[in-house]
Amino acid sequence: MDPISPVMLGVVIILIAAKIGGELARKFNQPAVLGELMVGIFLGNTVFFTGWGFSEFLQENPFLDYMGRFGALILLCRVGIETDVAAMMESRVSAFFVAVAGVIAPCVLGYPITLYLLPDIHPHTRLIIITALCATSVGITTRVFEDLGKLQMPEARIVLGAAIFDDVLGLLILSVVTSVITTGSFALGSMFNIAVYAAVFLSIAAVVSLKFTHVIGEYISRFHAEGMKMVFAVSTCFLLAYIADGIGLAPIVGAFAAGLILRDIKVKDFQGHEHEMDEMIRPAYLVFVPMFFITMGAQVRLEAFLDKSTVLLAVGISVAAVLGKLVAGLFARGKNLNRLCIGVAMIPRGEVGLIFASMGLSLGVLDDTTYSALVIMIMFTTLITPSLLKRTLYTPEEFRTYEREAARYEI
Amino acid sequence: MDPISPVMLGVVIILIAAKIGGELARKFNQPAVLGELMVGIFLGNTVFFTGWGFSEFLQENPFLDYMGRFGALILLCRVGIETDVAAMMESRVSAFFVAVAGVIAPCVLGYPITLYLLPDIHPHTRLIIITALCATSVGITTRVFEDLGKLQMPEARIVLGAAIFDDVLGLLILSVVTSVITTGSFALGSMFNIAVYAAVFLSIAAVVSLKFTHVIGEYISRFHAEGMKMVFAVSTCFLLAYIADGIGLAPIVGAFAAGLILRDIKVKDFQGHEHEMDEMIRPAYLVFVPMFFITMGAQVRLEAFLDKSTVLLAVGISVAAVLGKLVAGLFARGKNLNRLCIGVAMIPRGEVGLIFASMGLSLGVLDDTTYSALVIMIMFTTLITPSLLKRTLYTPEEFRTYEREAARYEI
Repeated sequence: MDPISPVMLGVVIILIAAKIGGELARKFNQPAVLGELMVGIFLGNTVFFTGWGFSEFLQENPFLDYMGRFGALILLCRVGIETDVAAMMESRVSAFFVAVAGVIAPCVLGYPITLYLLPDIHPHTRLIIITALCATSVGITTRVFEDLGKLQMPEARIVLGAAIFDDVLGLLILSVVTSVITTGSFALGSMFNIAVYAAVFLSIAAVVSLKFTHVIGEYISRFHAEGMKMVFAVSTCFLLAYIADGIGLAPIVGAFAAGLILRDIKVKDFQGHEHEMDEMIRPAYLVFVPMFFITMGAQVRLEAFLDKSTVLLAVGISVAAVLGKLVAGLFARGKNLNRLCIGVAMIPRGEVGLIFASMGLSLGVLDDTTYSALVIMIMFTTLITPSLLKRTLYTPEEFRTYEREAARYEI
Repeated sequence: MDPISPVMLGVVIILIAAKIGGELARKFNQPAVLGELMVGIFLGNTVFFTGWGFSEFLQENPFLDYMGRFGALILLCRVGIETDVAAMMESRVSAFFVAVAGVIAPCVLGYPITLYLLPDIHPHTRLIIITALCATSVGITTRVFEDLGKLQMPEARIVLGAAIFDDVLGLLILSVVTSVITTGSFALGSMFNIAVYAAVFLSIAAVVSLKFTHVIGEYISRFHAEGMKMVFAVSTCFLLAYIADGIGLAPIVGAFAAGLILRDIKVKDFQGHEHEMDEMIRPAYLVFVPMFFITMGAQVRLEAFLDKSTVLLAVGISVAAVLGKLVAGLFARGKNLNRLCIGVAMIPRGEVGLIFASMGLSLGVLDDTTYSALVIMIMFTTLITPSLLKRTLYTPEEFRTYEREAARYEI
């Protein structure tokens, strides 16, 4: 048999499973990441469920692992592309306070909980767990606001802005945490250095994004080889990730910076039609990002939940994750704001939390218990948000009317 | 450093190099495969040119190797998608004779040449060399006919039909040759079995293509998860390649069969717009196929040409390749046919020849000398065809007029 055959079959199974997961999620009005994670958990535990040995292949094949890692980079690049700095600036004060509080509060709550539940784990493991609690993913939140026609309300603007601050803060923190874990030292000097590197790196990307996108777009438009623009988008993502890695930052920081740059680049095809870079990175996104979600889901060890401590940990950090962001909502500045709504909207960890967990996994500081608990926390926070958020936006009476309407029109 | 970093850089360099190669080829009005092969040869010989060790990384990294192999499958799938059986049937008799003669004649000419130049090589190596001489790639030929507005002339129809027969014959022969090499036996029984398997496999694909594409298209259109159609196209290709491999055929036979099936499948998006599968496999084609060409080019050892025997072999098999297809042209049936034009149009080996050479490489029967000579033959036959073909289509007087016109309008 051709050595490539098992990999081919693995890719086919993962891709089809991912789309089944995505389709299921869509049916239940949930984000694709949830369905894909669930299918990934199933595939990663086929031995547990059916005795079929696919799990091991899925967890250990280096090719599939690399495809998943590429997915993480392309995911962060897309997050960068979707980072609308101008819109954020409108509500920057509130957004900044909410973001900072949303980073600090879950850590402050999560730290004693992990200390109580897992007194003996390595400090690095604890560090990565509480770092993952900081993340925010407002994809599902945005969709709820959008579905209800409430994307323009002040609370929604604050949440979207806070999510962007949160992405940047999260990347800074992750860079520092990564450096602490790999060098093994908590030296303030080097932590400061890394934070400055990451900030400078992202700032350069922001400046390029503001000043040079037009020139770059014009230049790229001059080439007509098929697929040139797609290759440009993917290459920019990988190249900046490589550079970030080279100067000691996490590769995803580079991918995010690439997204910031690509955001405003518009290219023309030879017929003069304009295209955005989001469109160019889309095919890679549709294939590699589901592979990331599936391989991440596959690393969850269901056996771990036979142990009470995993269940307790999952519950404990989920509580810290939810309460922490609710507290953050209180820090919004302004009159007559629905602060509960802001807090709830910040709850989902989604794919951003997953990126943090995957970093912990590749740094080797998470074991089956802690990783599995983190993924459950990520899924839980993402799952509960849509219905909670709708409840905060209506009085109980209005909510019942809304539910009846929604059932009638199948919203 | 992250273990994925060197791979990321490798992917970026290959992708950018491929597009530079494609752009150069376009400038000189040549098919992209030529430019990409040339750039691949350069990258694969950076030690030779510059002392830079990128070559070894490019040749030995398993991830890049797999990406190239995926490219070969997607390439064959696209060849299947472009196989217009209906158009071929119009000129089937001539096309069949030309195709069969085009397979036999280069072998008959090539066999004594390799016997004279390389008397001591293993019979399997000789087998793969003369098999690669059978291939036909009419991509560049089609473009020349198209540019000159002569795609409807009988000669063009015959050539396009013969190329399709040639693809099928080539895959049958390759399946048999692969089985002979891997089992080490020339047993007629098993050769016959393999040929029958391959024929049955392709026939089933053809029947599915004729009868069930509508049903499949309807079914796939019902799913709305993003990227579902793209995943369906790529998965069909990989899955049939996997099955082909499982029943003892070359994976590319399965990929070609997948292309035959995908050809007529039309899917609707949720807005009701119709899409063809060619469009769905296109992003994968634009990324992975150049990776195949680059990695194939990179396997060429320029040092091999310091040895006279490599140069002689390249010249010898190029002569056999050209003369063999010219002879094939004589077998066209019909009155007043320009048989020289048909023969010339069949000369290019292009990407199909490269697939054959890559099979030889992965079977381990080609060494630096023979592989490098094959690639040169493939490039040479592809390079000389456009200008030769134009000359056969005009009298010398007409040709001079055409050249003047072409220079004026930059055709």
